Amino acid sequence: MSYNKSAYTLGSKRSVIREIFEYSKARKAAIGYDKVFDFSLGNPSVEPPEEVTEAILSLTKELKPTLLHGYTSAQGDAAVRKAVADNIKNRFGVDISADYIYMTCGAAASLSIVLKALFDQGDECIVFAPFFTEYSVFIANAGGKIVVSEPENKTFQIDLADFTNRITEKTKAVIINSPNNPSGVVYTEETVRNVCEILKRKSREFGHEIYLISDEPYRELVYNGIFVPYIMNYYDSSIVCYSYSKSLSLPGERIGYIAVNPKMHESAEIYLAVCGAGRSLGYVCAPALFQQVVARCIDVKVKISPYKENRDLLYNNLTDFGFECVKPDGAFYLFVKSPDVDAVSFYEKAKKYELLIVPCDDFGVKGYVRIAYCVDKKTIVDSLPYFRKLAEDYKLIKQ
Amino acid sequence: MSYNKSAYTLGSKRSVIREIFEYSKARKAAIGYDKVFDFSLGNPSVEPPEEVTEAILSLTKELKPTLLHGYTSAQGDAAVRKAVADNIKNRFGVDISADYIYMTCGAAASLSIVLKALFDQGDECIVFAPFFTEYSVFIANAGGKIVVSEPENKTFQIDLADFTNRITEKTKAVIINSPNNPSGVVYTEETVRNVCEILKRKSREFGHEIYLISDEPYRELVYNGIFVPYIMNYYDSSIVCYSYSKSLSLPGERIGYIAVNPKMHESAEIYLAVCGAGRSLGYVCAPALFQQVVARCIDVKVKISPYKENRDLLYNNLTDFGFECVKPDGAFYLFVKSPDVDAVSFYEKAKKYELLIVPCDDFGVKGYVRIAYCVDKKTIVDSLPYFRKLAEDYKLIKQ
Repeated sequence: MSYNKSAYTLGSKRSVIREIFEYSKARKAAIGYDKVFDFSLGNPSVEPPEEVTEAILSLTKELKPTLLHGYTSAQGDAAVRKAVADNIKNRFGVDISADYIYMTCGAAASLSIVLKALFDQGDECIVFAPFFTEYSVFIANAGGKIVVSEPENKTFQIDLADFTNRITEKTKAVIINSPNNPSGVVYTEETVRNVCEILKRKSREFGHEIYLISDEPYRELVYNGIFVPYIMNYYDSSIVCYSYSKSLSLPGERIGYIAVNPKMHESAEIYLAVCGAGRSLGYVCAPALFQQVVARCIDVKVKISPYKENRDLLYNNLTDFGFECVKPDGAFYLFVKSPDVDAVSFYEKAKKYELLIVPCDDFGVKGYVRIAYCVDKKTIVDSLPYFRKLAEDYKLIKQ
Repeated sequence: MSYNKSAYTLGSKRSVIREIFEYSKARKAAIGYDKVFDFSLGNPSVEPPEEVTEAILSLTKELKPTLLHGYTSAQGDAAVRKAVADNIKNRFGVDISADYIYMTCGAAASLSIVLKALFDQGDECIVFAPFFTEYSVFIANAGGKIVVSEPENKTFQIDLADFTNRITEKTKAVIINSPNNPSGVVYTEETVRNVCEILKRKSREFGHEIYLISDEPYRELVYNGIFVPYIMNYYDSSIVCYSYSKSLSLPGERIGYIAVNPKMHESAEIYLAVCGAGRSLGYVCAPALFQQVVARCIDVKVKISPYKENRDLLYNNLTDFGFECVKPDGAFYLFVKSPDVDAVSFYEKAKKYELLIVPCDDFGVKGYVRIAYCVDKKTIVDSLPYFRKLAEDYKLIKQ
C-alpha cells in the first residue's frame, strides 16, 4: 500500500452519519421519498430567512463580479470581520475588534484550524460526552489525544468531578458544545462557571494556559428563551467557533468564523497561529459571496418555531410510547436511550420500519441513539405509527 | 508559549504575495487607487462569463433554498460530479466516472487533500522550480519533505537530468504545474512524455508507485491555442487538481475538484484516502451553490483575449526596455530576471515607483520577480512610464 493508511481508514469507514445519509438516498430512490423517515443528518429543514435569498440576489446584481467573487484577505474581508466583531460586541458585551475574527468554511473548518493552531504532538483535548464524533478526527489531525469526560447520568450536564480528574499537565484545551450535539442539552450558567473555575485553578496549578474552545453552531437554536452563556465573559483563554450552517440554514455553503478572545494572554500571537493553521490546511479564504451574505444578514436568524414544534411533537409522543429521553432545550436532536441490548441493535430494528436514526456509540455514550428532528413536520407525523410499533416490539408501551 | 509554534510562524510570516496584497490595500487607501500599480496577486481581472452570474441568479430563484444550500455528499453532489467526469471524458478522452471525482474548496484544498491522502511522514515530493510557494506549506502539513528540481536555464522547461537525479526510494509524488505559476511556461508534450517515462522506470526500479499530481488551475489560460497535455493520458498513477478560480474568475468562491485516474493501481482505495484526508482537514463539502454553478457552466470559459493583450503589451514593452523575461504561453504571469543584486532589491526599487511585483526567492529560483498581469489594461498602460524609469535606473535601455 503506497497511500496514507489512516486517511484511507477514515475515508473508507466514513462517519456513521454520512453512511446512513448515503443509505437513505439510495433507499428513498428505491421505495419512494416519503416512505423513508430519515432522522440521521443535521441538515436544516427550515428555509433560510428571506433576507438571505435577497442578499444573494442583490449582491449578485449590484456588485462587480470580479470584486464579489475575488479573493478576500485570508482571514476574511475586513468589513465582514468588522460586522461580525460588532455583532459579538452588541450581543454579548465583549470588547472585540475585527483583528480577532477569522472567517472560515464553517464549524468543522473552524475547529480543525483552532486545534491545529494550538496543539503540539501529544497534547490532550478534553471533550464532554456525548460529543460530535468528528471531534476525534480533528483532534487527531492536530496531533492531539482525545480525552472523554463522562456526563452526569440522565441530565447530560457536565460531571464536574469527572472533568476535574481528567485534567492533566498535558491538557491543552477543552471543547464545550452547547446546545449540544447530540443531546440537545444546554449547559447551565452554573455549569459553565464551575467549568471555568476549575480550568483557572488547574491552569495555575500546571503553570500554563488551558484553552476553552466553544463550538457553537447551535447557539441560536434554543427554545423558551433559555440562556446560553457566552464563554468569553467567563474565561479569558477562550476561542469561539461559530457557523451559520444552522442559524441561517446554509450548511452546504460552509461559512462561519473563529473569534479569539482579545483578553487572552498572547491573543495576537494566537490569532496569527490561527492564520497559519488555516494556511497550512489549504484554506485560502472563506467563500467570498457568502462572507458578504452573512454580513448583510448579521442580525437575521432562522425561524425556530418549526423546530420547537417538531421537538414537542416527537418528544411528547416518544416518551408517551415509553422511550426514555432527556428533554432538549436546544439544537434539533433527541437523544434517546436504546431499549435494546445496544444502540446498533436498536438502530437496526428501527431501520426495518424505515426509521433512520443514528446509533451514538461513537459519540462517547454507549446505548443511545440520536434522532435529528430537523425534518418536515409531516415526516414526524407519518413516522409516529412506526415509532409506536417499534415501542410495541420492545414492549415499552404501558397499556 | 503554549500554542503551536509552526502555525504561528506560518501565520506571522504569511506568504510574500499576501504580504504585498495587504500593503497594496493600505497604500491605495493612502495615495489613491490608480496611483498604485499592483501586479502582486493572481486575482483575475477578467469578469466571470455572464453564464456564471445567470446561473447564480436562476439557481437562487428556482431551487428550494434548503436543497440549494444544504449539505451535499462529502465528495460533492452526485450530478455535479457526473457533469465534471463527463466533461473530462469529452475533452480528453479519459474513461472516468463520478466515482473518481471529489469536489473541493479550490486548488489549495485539492492539493493539501491529495498530499494528505498519499503521504506518510518523511516521504519526498518533487516540485519543479519555479513553483508556487504554498506547495512547501501543503507538503509539510502532510508530513512530507519538499525536493526541488532545478529548471532548464532560460526556458524554464524541466531539466530531465536534474529531475532524474532527484528521484529516490523515498519519492512518493511529483507535482507538475503547467501552465506554470510563476513562469507562465507551458510544458511541451515531449517534456511531459519524458517525465512520465522517467517516472515509470523509477517506479519499477524502486518497486512502488510514484504519483504524478497535476496542479492545473491555469489549464484554460493559454494563448495561440497551445497544447496542454492531459496527464491521465500519459501516466496511470496520476491525479488532477483542478480549480475554477481562474477558468471562471471565481477565486474567492473556493471551488474546484480532484480527479483520480481510474487506471491507477488501487484507484478506488486512493479515492477513499482522498475522502478521508478531506474529512480530517475539516472539509465537510465544497460550497453547495457553486457546485451547482460550475456544473451549469461546465463548458463555459472566461474570455482570455484581455489576458493575451496584457501579456503582449507588457512583455513587448518590458523586453524593449531591456528587461529579460521568457515569453509565457499561459497563465497570467511574467517571470522577469532581476537586474539588481537580488530579487528583493529589485522589488524594493520598483516599489518606489509604486510598482508592486513579487520577488520570487521563495519560488525556488533566485533572482527573479513575478509580475501578475491579470489587471486592467489601463493599469499596464499607466505603469509603463514607471517601468521605463526603473529600466533607466538600471541603465538597461539601449539608446
